[in-house]
Amino acid sequence: MGEKQTCTVLFEPSNASIEVAPGTLISAAASAAGVRINLPCGGQGRCGRCLVQVRAGHVARRASAKLPQELAQQGYALACQATIYEDAIVFVPAQEEMERVLVPVGGVSQKAAKAEQFLVPPEPEVQRCYVQLDPPSLEDNTADVDRLRRHLASQCGLAGVSLGLPVVQRLGRALREQGWRVTATVEQPREGGGLWLIDVAPGDAASRLYGVAIDIGTTSNVVTLVDLHTGKMLATASAYNAQISCGEDVISRIIYARREDGLRRLQALVVETINGLIRQLADKRGLALDDIVRATVAGNTTMLQLFLAVDPQPIRLAPYIPAMTHAVGVRAREVGLGINPEASVDCLPCVGAYVGADITAGVLASGMAESDQLSLFIDIGTNGEIVLGNRDFLISCACSAGPAFEGSGVEYGMRAAAGAIDGVWIAKDFEPTWRTIGNEKPRGICGSGMIDLLAEMFITGLVDRNGRLAKDLPTDRVRMGEHGREYVVAWADETAIGRDITINEVDLENLVRTKAAIYAGFNVLLDSVGTSLDDVERVLIGGAFGQYVDVEKAIEIGLLPDMPWDRFHFLGNTSLAGAYQCLASRERRRQVDEIGAKMTYLELSADNRFMDAFTAAMFLPHTEMSRFPSVEAELAERGSA
Amino acid sequence: MGEKQTCTVLFEPSNASIEVAPGTLISAAASAAGVRINLPCGGQGRCGRCLVQVRAGHVARRASAKLPQELAQQGYALACQATIYEDAIVFVPAQEEMERVLVPVGGVSQKAAKAEQFLVPPEPEVQRCYVQLDPPSLEDNTADVDRLRRHLASQCGLAGVSLGLPVVQRLGRALREQGWRVTATVEQPREGGGLWLIDVAPGDAASRLYGVAIDIGTTSNVVTLVDLHTGKMLATASAYNAQISCGEDVISRIIYARREDGLRRLQALVVETINGLIRQLADKRGLALDDIVRATVAGNTTMLQLFLAVDPQPIRLAPYIPAMTHAVGVRAREVGLGINPEASVDCLPCVGAYVGADITAGVLASGMAESDQLSLFIDIGTNGEIVLGNRDFLISCACSAGPAFEGSGVEYGMRAAAGAIDGVWIAKDFEPTWRTIGNEKPRGICGSGMIDLLAEMFITGLVDRNGRLAKDLPTDRVRMGEHGREYVVAWADETAIGRDITINEVDLENLVRTKAAIYAGFNVLLDSVGTSLDDVERVLIGGAFGQYVDVEKAIEIGLLPDMPWDRFHFLGNTSLAGAYQCLASRERRRQVDEIGAKMTYLELSADNRFMDAFTAAMFLPHTEMSRFPSVEAELAERGSA
Repeated sequence: MGEKQTCTVLFEPSNASIEVAPGTLISAAASAAGVRINLPCGGQGRCGRCLVQVRAGHVARRASAKLPQELAQQGYALACQATIYEDAIVFVPAQEEMERVLVPVGGVSQKAAKAEQFLVPPEPEVQRCYVQLDPPSLEDNTADVDRLRRHLASQCGLAGVSLGLPVVQRLGRALREQGWRVTATVEQPREGGGLWLIDVAPGDAASRLYGVAIDIGTTSNVVTLVDLHTGKMLATASAYNAQISCGEDVISRIIYARREDGLRRLQALVVETINGLIRQLADKRGLALDDIVRATVAGNTTMLQLFLAVDPQPIRLAPYIPAMTHAVGVRAREVGLGINPEASVDCLPCVGAYVGADITAGVLASGMAESDQLSLFIDIGTNGEIVLGNRDFLISCACSAGPAFEGSGVEYGMRAAAGAIDGVWIAKDFEPTWRTIGNEKPRGICGSGMIDLLAEMFITGLVDRNGRLAKDLPTDRVRMGEHGREYVVAWADETAIGRDITINEVDLENLVRTKAAIYAGFNVLLDSVGTSLDDVERVLIGGAFGQYVDVEKAIEIGLLPDMPWDRFHFLGNTSLAGAYQCLASRERRRQVDEIGAKMTYLELSADNRFMDAFTAAMFLPHTEMSRFPSVEAELAERGSA
Repeated sequence: MGEKQTCTVLFEPSNASIEVAPGTLISAAASAAGVRINLPCGGQGRCGRCLVQVRAGHVARRASAKLPQELAQQGYALACQATIYEDAIVFVPAQEEMERVLVPVGGVSQKAAKAEQFLVPPEPEVQRCYVQLDPPSLEDNTADVDRLRRHLASQCGLAGVSLGLPVVQRLGRALREQGWRVTATVEQPREGGGLWLIDVAPGDAASRLYGVAIDIGTTSNVVTLVDLHTGKMLATASAYNAQISCGEDVISRIIYARREDGLRRLQALVVETINGLIRQLADKRGLALDDIVRATVAGNTTMLQLFLAVDPQPIRLAPYIPAMTHAVGVRAREVGLGINPEASVDCLPCVGAYVGADITAGVLASGMAESDQLSLFIDIGTNGEIVLGNRDFLISCACSAGPAFEGSGVEYGMRAAAGAIDGVWIAKDFEPTWRTIGNEKPRGICGSGMIDLLAEMFITGLVDRNGRLAKDLPTDRVRMGEHGREYVVAWADETAIGRDITINEVDLENLVRTKAAIYAGFNVLLDSVGTSLDDVERVLIGGAFGQYVDVEKAIEIGLLPDMPWDRFHFLGNTSLAGAYQCLASRERRRQVDEIGAKMTYLELSADNRFMDAFTAAMFLPHTEMSRFPSVEAELAERGSA
């Protein structure tokens, strides 16, 4: 059989077909057939967004980091990197389909799948029991409370239940209006302490046992409604933390709290935000707020203190002291949380001023504390918090990364909202292609977009290893602006804001500082326990932001260490996942306390090694290029291309 | 030596002297010498108010119940019952002096002496500890709460202290403003549960450890300020329960509580009353309210429920069910009590709807539960509550005595306030002499006055054994009034109200019903345990009202059983005394729980024996006169006189 002169390519699902010469790129064939395939990186094989599935015929694939082995085995190929040599049927997936297919390494959210992996067997610290009391008589004139306690012991096996004034105040009416048939909500604290009756609901409400897991982020608040009987997550809702109006980051919130009534206002704002989410979830499931009988809360130390109206000033100034690291007994009514007013509001343990319950919860959810493998857990948000360890030890630090990745400190930075550029590819002619959230016209650049942008600018030679914009390049996109030299990412007429969206050298320096702080952080951690990156078996990336980071690009700028991609695991919102687990399972709740107690906190501001490591990391990707062999190789390849 | 013809009597302190014939009454001699000695009972030896001390010379005394042996041995005599046979020096004490000297049996308050007898060794459930914390540093960056806990363990031996949100909210500032030197107030619950930090006070406040014992009466509220280091009672204040504006008795308060906002209003009123007393005491001693770190509360079941804003409706209607009988955890802020907001407010245990914490506290204070002697404890107030028992058993009941003795249901009845007639003596000519509180012109008759009045009217023949006013007596004080026949106790021009103060047959019937209910009550109690009055070794009379009752007269009307006077013990406000003991001593607090648990409650409304005994007691002193031999004898003596 000789070589075919032409090959027929049928594109599905459009059913367009075309004859092409052997050796034609799939992307070129599609273009000729009038089938639209996006090529955000300009056909360089670097964005992985032109994924297609070859359903018949053989194609030649160029190796690409964006095409993992398992996908290639399923027939997937990158349209810009695969050439046709025989008749073929090529399926062009819709955008959403592609998102589902692409592995996390591609930086794609797989929220639904992730939530499932955190499920735990339900064993909550609160239960409901339906009791049918004998009505009182002259012969049996036991007091209401004592009568209820007697029946809780005999009918539910709950002996020695205590209760507080608010329940006593409601009990008499509840019992009489309900014909002495009520549902008791009883807490069983995991650590000693007796049974505690928090509520008496009318009739048989035993099946309605709900809780909320709450993640209080500096930027976003997320609430998951959980059925505590099954341990299932019923629904999740998120919103911006309304405290944003009082400051973008933790420090500005703390400063705001110094104002008269500032602390009270911050507390009210975050509670309003959360209550809105809870109402939304309860409405959606048609359930009563009183049936939500427990809340478990994760968040950074400052967010938790603000939520509890505990003055956070000592967190801001050396020696950076939180008010508490362990849960104190809090009832929903004490903080105005819109669930059953007597429900426990369980704030998870913090480790220090800058390693909060979002991290202990994250470590819990990541499973690293139960593993023999040495893992590095990273949560990149306003700060970068890092934990190194395994089942034997945990050591943590917080890098003052600054909020650059959350859109602050960068002129056109913005949060990950509709219209944010969240992916960027730059072609050899320095022309960019970008993707926006919601496919809207761009309004700014969010964190993952900035990492992409910095990486692409570095790889294409737009910025040098110092993070400076190159001069005299053959492009009008590099120019002098108000804040020094700048690169135009999008022209005014392409945007939703009617202005050029640019990135300038001040922005670039902020981004480099941020990535340097994080990279320095885990180097100091590793150093402090006498180990190195080579020994790290897994890099677990938590936090909502981490979900969208493109590993390849994060390595290119020296934010993440240069190691095989299969060691990176994107876990999504681990703070929320940990809160969920602690809500649903007393055993997990106990474990997070152990994690908090076991975790050492390394204060970097007191550590000279950190300043050295930070300075060394202020290059792209790093002063020592040998730490980033894959980047070195790529640059070499580029340089020779 | 022949008999003297005249004797010289020198009266002190006036130094008036006179010559009298031997056999002259001291009262006659005084009158002749121009020395004023009050003779309220008209010289019948029944009031004991003409007490004098014979400091030289011998006088002949007629035996009188009003002159106990020990006073006679000290030279005391009743001026109207003692005759002069030789030269004598007679000291006429001022009114206040006499009050101090007279034994309780005379119906005289001896508050100060009484309070002392209840003192217990201090062993409170709350303590204060001054801690000097190491300030935090980068090397020692433990959280505030953990730091405090660490120092409480090392410096005070208080390991494992827990704390709630309100203290956490204040802690950071307190520690920093005070240079890390603070005083922790820690509760040590008597029954399990861990240590609980309720407060952090500036500097060294360890010596300032105060509590308040509170007696919430339907009529009066009393507060005693206690130094919990020494167990000493520092001061006591009382005031009318402001709830009186919403009803005089328990039942009308419960009905008021049915109104919209009624419960809340009643709660606010009693708390206002108590807070006023607490402020008054704190001001007097110059101490800060925050240094009052515990409250122990006694009162009847309804009063406690109203104080806690717990709906009391089920108390009013059969089967008469209280909300709770045992203390529930309450903090001062939850009820608005004006002491340290985090202080525990410990309501003592109740036994049933009508045997409250005033009774358990009273039994505790009386000591009867630790005694081998069979005792009868009586607390006469709005209701009459009775407890029979010893160290082996306790059985209680409540008689619906009605508020006649508290001034309600009697036309000119009033509470024991200034201007109330609180003692009455009637001479053979049916002319009364009375004593008023504060020596003011009379405004009405209080409880002890009514007992006196009924007894005197009965003994002098003004009323018959049915409680009916006699007809055709040679006095214009008995006449027809609006409510049937009536007796004029004070003419309009003698009063402060400008009207005749009278007692009518309706009033009399109410008084008889009241005394009959109480007498029937302890008869049924005795009957129910198969014993009789003969076996009762002590009658312990508690309650503020009981303090002022004249035993002789209470026996004459058949309110108290006819037994030797030395078996009666007047204990004053035992509810307050019990609250004090439970405040000062965890051991006593434990014992009152035992008392509450041990005490059986006999519901009289379900007991036919009660109706029989009540009917039999509706006579003066009783249907069976043989039960009251001393009264029978007195009547016989009178009849023959």
